[in-house]
Amino acid sequence: MYDRIKGFRDVYPAEMAAWRETIDTLEDTARQYGFREISTPALERAELWTDKSGDDIVDELYAFEDQGGRHVTLTPELTPTVARMVVAKQQELSKPIKWFSTRPFWRYEQVQQGRQREFYQTNVDIFGSSEPEADAEILAWAADALTGLDLTEDHFEFRISHRDILGGVLESYETDVDVDDAIRAVDKSDKLSTAEYHDLLIGAGLSADQAAEFADLVATGDLEAVRSFAGTERVRDAVDNLQAVLGAVEDFGAREHCTISLETARGLDYYTGVVFECFDSAGEVSRSIFGGGRYDDMIESFGGQPTPAVGVAPGHATLPLLLQRAGVWPDERISTDYYVLQIGDTRADAARIVRELRERGHVVETDIAGRSFGAQLNYADSINAETVVIVGEQDLENDEVTVKDMASGDQTQVPVSSFPGDRTRPTIADFDR
Amino acid sequence: MYDRIKGFRDVYPAEMAAWRETIDTLEDTARQYGFREISTPALERAELWTDKSGDDIVDELYAFEDQGGRHVTLTPELTPTVARMVVAKQQELSKPIKWFSTRPFWRYEQVQQGRQREFYQTNVDIFGSSEPEADAEILAWAADALTGLDLTEDHFEFRISHRDILGGVLESYETDVDVDDAIRAVDKSDKLSTAEYHDLLIGAGLSADQAAEFADLVATGDLEAVRSFAGTERVRDAVDNLQAVLGAVEDFGAREHCTISLETARGLDYYTGVVFECFDSAGEVSRSIFGGGRYDDMIESFGGQPTPAVGVAPGHATLPLLLQRAGVWPDERISTDYYVLQIGDTRADAARIVRELRERGHVVETDIAGRSFGAQLNYADSINAETVVIVGEQDLENDEVTVKDMASGDQTQVPVSSFPGDRTRPTIADFDR
Repeated sequence: MYDRIKGFRDVYPAEMAAWRETIDTLEDTARQYGFREISTPALERAELWTDKSGDDIVDELYAFEDQGGRHVTLTPELTPTVARMVVAKQQELSKPIKWFSTRPFWRYEQVQQGRQREFYQTNVDIFGSSEPEADAEILAWAADALTGLDLTEDHFEFRISHRDILGGVLESYETDVDVDDAIRAVDKSDKLSTAEYHDLLIGAGLSADQAAEFADLVATGDLEAVRSFAGTERVRDAVDNLQAVLGAVEDFGAREHCTISLETARGLDYYTGVVFECFDSAGEVSRSIFGGGRYDDMIESFGGQPTPAVGVAPGHATLPLLLQRAGVWPDERISTDYYVLQIGDTRADAARIVRELRERGHVVETDIAGRSFGAQLNYADSINAETVVIVGEQDLENDEVTVKDMASGDQTQVPVSSFPGDRTRPTIADFDR
Repeated sequence: MYDRIKGFRDVYPAEMAAWRETIDTLEDTARQYGFREISTPALERAELWTDKSGDDIVDELYAFEDQGGRHVTLTPELTPTVARMVVAKQQELSKPIKWFSTRPFWRYEQVQQGRQREFYQTNVDIFGSSEPEADAEILAWAADALTGLDLTEDHFEFRISHRDILGGVLESYETDVDVDDAIRAVDKSDKLSTAEYHDLLIGAGLSADQAAEFADLVATGDLEAVRSFAGTERVRDAVDNLQAVLGAVEDFGAREHCTISLETARGLDYYTGVVFECFDSAGEVSRSIFGGGRYDDMIESFGGQPTPAVGVAPGHATLPLLLQRAGVWPDERISTDYYVLQIGDTRADAARIVRELRERGHVVETDIAGRSFGAQLNYADSINAETVVIVGEQDLENDEVTVKDMASGDQTQVPVSSFPGDRTRPTIADFDR
């Protein structure tokens, strides 16, 4: 007997039904926004990551040499691939480019709740617009997708900031501050005591007073206070941009899901403007559910013309944690509209009914294992069949079949010619008894 | 600039639209049959293949050692994985188990038309029924899926046989025949001259007369002739089973798509009963489009209880060749229901219209790049928008918007309150001019 690999999951049908409903909601919402589906390779040249990220990411890659001597890797994220695709057809693609896809990625990481080594994401990106409306559309899509999953503002919030705010404020100090170290301190401040947090800021070059002042300023999330405190063009532009994005988000109907949170730094590399993370409003899921933001330098770094970009990527390992916490994770349950039960040699008649019901789009099963009445009824129950149509030799002599409602147990005989007859979705309620 | 890896494809939105339509048809049909979706890992322990297949398959694997020292491989096919999953939950799963999934697989092979190193398949399998109705349901699903793609019996045929027929007939010779060699000869007979074919059969141990006789018998596809020629129980059972499957296929409405073809051997290992391959009826696509059959020994070979199995796996590299040849490959074209065009500062009103149209399920885009009237109209054209709703400052002063039909170029002004108003999908035809 063989085992699956650690960090990789087998998803059986009942659980898959809940996954599929979740993914469909995200994707249907993306389609309504005019995002277009793409399909991308599982393998890329490892250089797409090693050239840029160096050792940080290499340890996490499933990288190897293929039979042709290429140094390849299972892709740990989508962005370099879409950047490569945008560069390859830069001229022919009409802008803005709006793409989505749902697919697995792979990272060799510690396995824990909400983190597997194979994990699915729905990536949603816009290339070719630097306008605040593009950032806002990404946020509005994410909000619409989550409310489409029956989450409300009581369940989730987008904590939103602009990458230049923290850096700009830190730069405005006359002391020599290690900005990256200070931002890293902010990034993990919610896991630290105040003293620990301040110590890290002091370690980054601030004085004790400056550390306290900076931490307080950041914690208030007061954009006007930040603007006047720093007084630099960089901070002014960042605050203006963040406010413009929030204005567009208001028009797009998603403002109530956004909270200004200057502690949201979302790492150091990669992002260039607005950044945000989705959190459980109630705080029961303590980690970020997913995040996104603007990354205007990426396409150029892959050899393309400068192309602004903004995106988000809900992950299907963490999103269920939030949906389950909120009590809106879809039922892990398969469903079946009809089971057509055969008694005796009634296959031809049963098959006719099966075909007609399937042509109407229903989920229909029938016996393909030569089983008894009882075994078929048990099976119909195991697949949660709503209605069982019993096609028996004796009934057929009277040109009848029996329709059984599985919830109530009620059943009635109906003319075989009227099942399904003209009806789109006949149930026991359609027939007089 | 980075290149993609040879044998791996970037699929852009227009082509993806055709793929998606094709995959949806296969999957929707599978759901109607009561097949249940599963999700499976991209990586498995390499032993799942090397233990069984030895060197034949090893050369084709993307196998490597992971960071934890595991000998793993990108999966080249689904069957060992589902076998593993069935074994893992043998007791709790109600039989028959009916599963489907669409996902990529990977083989390091020569790249050619219809064959990439990363390729997608929709696998559809039944575990736990040895009855002919199970084989027939697989064939009926495949036929329904293909007719759902607008293919007819003029376009495709399933060439069907039973694995024991060739072997059983060869066994019935008193000479010492290498059955595997002879079946390999039959398998490639359509690519050989008659003389070459006979020579291979002679090489397998038949006399010249026997070779000619055997080749003729197999070519006729006459099941009764085969039954009486061999006279063994093995051949009798195989013919009976094949006829029973075809009888059930008749009831299931797919008989016209099946042709008895005893030359269909479908390799040597793995299959244990009925086997079939889908071919282009007109012969323009010369290779098999996809195949399937019964593999009753697989689950046991993976350490499970003996569990009969039958399945099929249309591949999304070869299926398009057939659809294109038949002229029914879906348009490689994105589609958009509405583009909401903004002139001046009309974002709030435009956004309201966008939201209401999206709530009705439509694909709707609006300006997120701060562009001019002309640039927006060009973009709307590039995404094949059917209707453009022009929200202009001047029109809004009269509480009007302009509705433009992109096919005809006709446009008309309508009250802003009536767009979309009560209408599910308003077009220019809904408004008097």
